[in-house]
Amino acid sequence: MRNAPIDTVFNQGKPNPYGEFFTGKTYLTMLSEKDDVFNAPIGNVTFEPKARTHWHKHSGGQILLVLSGEGRYQEKGKDVQVVRKGDVIRIAPNVEHWHGAAPDSWMTHISVETNVPNNTTEWLSPVSDDEYCFS
Amino acid sequence: MRNAPIDTVFNQGKPNPYGEFFTGKTYLTMLSEKDDVFNAPIGNVTFEPKARTHWHKHSGGQILLVLSGEGRYQEKGKDVQVVRKGDVIRIAPNVEHWHGAAPDSWMTHISVETNVPNNTTEWLSPVSDDEYCFS
Repeated sequence: MRNAPIDTVFNQGKPNPYGEFFTGKTYLTMLSEKDDVFNAPIGNVTFEPKARTHWHKHSGGQILLVLSGEGRYQEKGKDVQVVRKGDVIRIAPNVEHWHGAAPDSWMTHISVETNVPNNTTEWLSPVSDDEYCFS
Repeated sequence: MRNAPIDTVFNQGKPNPYGEFFTGKTYLTMLSEKDDVFNAPIGNVTFEPKARTHWHKHSGGQILLVLSGEGRYQEKGKDVQVVRKGDVIRIAPNVEHWHGAAPDSWMTHISVETNVPNNTTEWLSPVSDDEYCFS
């Protein structure tokens, strides 16, 4: 059954403290906190089925590494992509996008913030059900 | 049986082209190549049992995320640490260290180079059998 919790590899963590910028239930563990030694905040994010980020963009870009399950990724103006365990998503600076789980599968990805400390995130509108298209 | 290939999550890749700086067989897939868009080279490295890097240091630091198996990590002058799937190793700039598999287990980790482009690697002497202590 795909609609079940999955192997998150790293700890699943707690309910996402940035939940206001997400639709549905998500979980976050920081694997490496933001600091000026490494300048590379790394988080592990787990999405329940249908859960997804709001539309957003990062001024310094972001790299996602899919660890488990099946998910969705879309850049503004392009088709929704299916992503799975083993996929890498390189999101260039200032590209508006969203990412989340498949309608019937959990999904876990690592998130690496790039070009820190010159990277700020701008959160935009929620991804509507029509945009997500899970019916 | 631990002494068997493991789930590398991402592709295991080809024999490591930097094998001259490693002892034993290792494999490398670049998940994100070095470039000036992201400034975050990310590789997936798999070590057969007993395989390990030479001693080395990174002027900009490195973060390792252990995906699978059991391994070893040591900083110069400190004890060898056992690391396993789900562990995160934050190696500060200029800290001399080595990493590799356990004597009887494969190990796969993601490697994130930090503070790029100001990060160069200095390779030092091999980790001797006595240092690795697998007998």
